[in-house]
Amino acid sequence: MSTPAAAPKPLRSDARRNRERLVASARELFSRSGPNVPVEEITQHAGLGMGTLYRHFPTKEELIDAVLEDAFAELEAAAGEAAAAENPWSGFAGFIERVFSLHAANRGLKDVLAARGQGSERAEALRARIKPLLRTTIERAQRQGTLRSDFTAEDLPVLFWSGERVIHATATVAPDYWRRYLALLLDGLRAEAATPLPGQPLTQAQLRRASQRRNG
Amino acid sequence: MSTPAAAPKPLRSDARRNRERLVASARELFSRSGPNVPVEEITQHAGLGMGTLYRHFPTKEELIDAVLEDAFAELEAAAGEAAAAENPWSGFAGFIERVFSLHAANRGLKDVLAARGQGSERAEALRARIKPLLRTTIERAQRQGTLRSDFTAEDLPVLFWSGERVIHATATVAPDYWRRYLALLLDGLRAEAATPLPGQPLTQAQLRRASQRRNG
Repeated sequence: MSTPAAAPKPLRSDARRNRERLVASARELFSRSGPNVPVEEITQHAGLGMGTLYRHFPTKEELIDAVLEDAFAELEAAAGEAAAAENPWSGFAGFIERVFSLHAANRGLKDVLAARGQGSERAEALRARIKPLLRTTIERAQRQGTLRSDFTAEDLPVLFWSGERVIHATATVAPDYWRRYLALLLDGLRAEAATPLPGQPLTQAQLRRASQRRNG
Repeated sequence: MSTPAAAPKPLRSDARRNRERLVASARELFSRSGPNVPVEEITQHAGLGMGTLYRHFPTKEELIDAVLEDAFAELEAAAGEAAAAENPWSGFAGFIERVFSLHAANRGLKDVLAARGQGSERAEALRARIKPLLRTTIERAQRQGTLRSDFTAEDLPVLFWSGERVIHATATVAPDYWRRYLALLLDGLRAEAATPLPGQPLTQAQLRRASQRRNG
């Protein structure tokens, strides 16, 4: 089934570029206004026609899924970079900053995720994929002596929830304020600042239940 | 219109005790189940009769207001103690712990506050009363050299919002987990740990707007 190499390749890369433009446009508009943006607006914003949209995404659900995959892929890539960072502390701190930053830029995606039936299962699958990367990131920074030794991978999501709240409250009022809160958190995470944390981190089961509750 | 001093005093202190029992009972049940607890349940829990309730609180609104005043008075007293604490850092850190602890114990009161028409105005008036006390608390700890010098009174509410989120997510799952999050925050607040915070604290106007948004 080999085809001549010259002809189809540019077409395929054209098609790929159009698909990417549609996903980027949808992601931008969903992030700004939630999942109810009309597809007409999305294609227009991408500078493409409805035919192109339907060729790539016969239903809006498929477009939504592509947007979620796109955001998830970005997060997974960030976790991979964090685990492999030359300076383990920069990898660790940089990942938290990246998550806060993505959250600030994609606030509408939370509703997109909630609007999709299997949204939470997909998010769960993503968490399972990045978990080993985050463990590596944390262990490396702790071995380096920069991250406090009593911090665990199960404490990390709690920081993200707290950050979500700060980002949500200040997003329209002072869009960069969260960086100040983040810097405070990071100072508390440094090994040199550490006084022993009381109590226990959450277990996996507690974390799962707390995660389901957090937006209630 | 003076009355003999001997007779009415024990009666008044009895009445005061009954009133306090009713308010404590209402506060406990509202905290647990929100503002819709029937007044019959509240008097029963207080071990008192409906007549006593109506004598003190002719309407449920008056009882709700008394509960809010009670919680506000506790917070105001805590702010006063913080500002006068012998060890300024203990005063500062102790106040944050007290607020988190009150929030964990009184989660239902948030709905009580929201259910009362002037709830937010009352909360606003409370904030105005405790603000100078918190400024004093912060300045004393900064002069002591224990609290980071770039922390401001306008950063404090943001910590409370972030804590609310953590408490809400973990309350039924791991009711003491918030102490771990608090310890992390406090380590980030110590002067010795401080790397300069980026950006600016919120202005008063930004803080007000962010505060209105935070539960949305």
